[in-house]
Amino acid sequence: MEAAIKTLIAQFKTYADGQDGPASTLSKDEFKSLVIAQLPNLVKNANEPGVIDQLMGSQDADKNGELTFAEFWDLIGKLASKEGGFSQ
Amino acid sequence: MEAAIKTLIAQFKTYADGQDGPASTLSKDEFKSLVIAQLPNLVKNANEPGVIDQLMGSQDADKNGELTFAEFWDLIGKLASKEGGFSQ
Repeated sequence: MEAAIKTLIAQFKTYADGQDGPASTLSKDEFKSLVIAQLPNLVKNANEPGVIDQLMGSQDADKNGELTFAEFWDLIGKLASKEGGFSQ
Repeated sequence: MEAAIKTLIAQFKTYADGQDGPASTLSKDEFKSLVIAQLPNLVKNANEPGVIDQLMGSQDADKNGELTFAEFWDLIGKLASKEGGFSQ
């Protein structure tokens, strides 16, 4: 389990330290790159207009256009909960 | 990333479907088994009195002595956030 958790942390950091904005948060473009590359099955229509905005909007609690690790983790939790068949 | 998420789901299910209580939630004993076996570095003192109670109490929002997947995911998120050096 710890290896899996470390993978999620490392991948978040890789994309957060990407194209723009602070290295500790995901900009919309960084988030889109992550979703398309890393979550092709959990988020099937990432390229469709509005999907990334809707996903990000639902998580960006402080509406600053950046996803913190906590906001990102919360989003992944919702996807995992659905994937695992747990009621939300 | 998806493989890591699936690992966390599968491990949760393995321990939740363990000793007692509903197969979709972790009882205190199941949670303790998971923490000791799966999170030896993220939770170093799991065997010390009160550690599991404190961890579980902080997450068991509905205080029913069982951790749902969402409550579990939230806890792992806090551990991951600390591990990743993100401010909590």
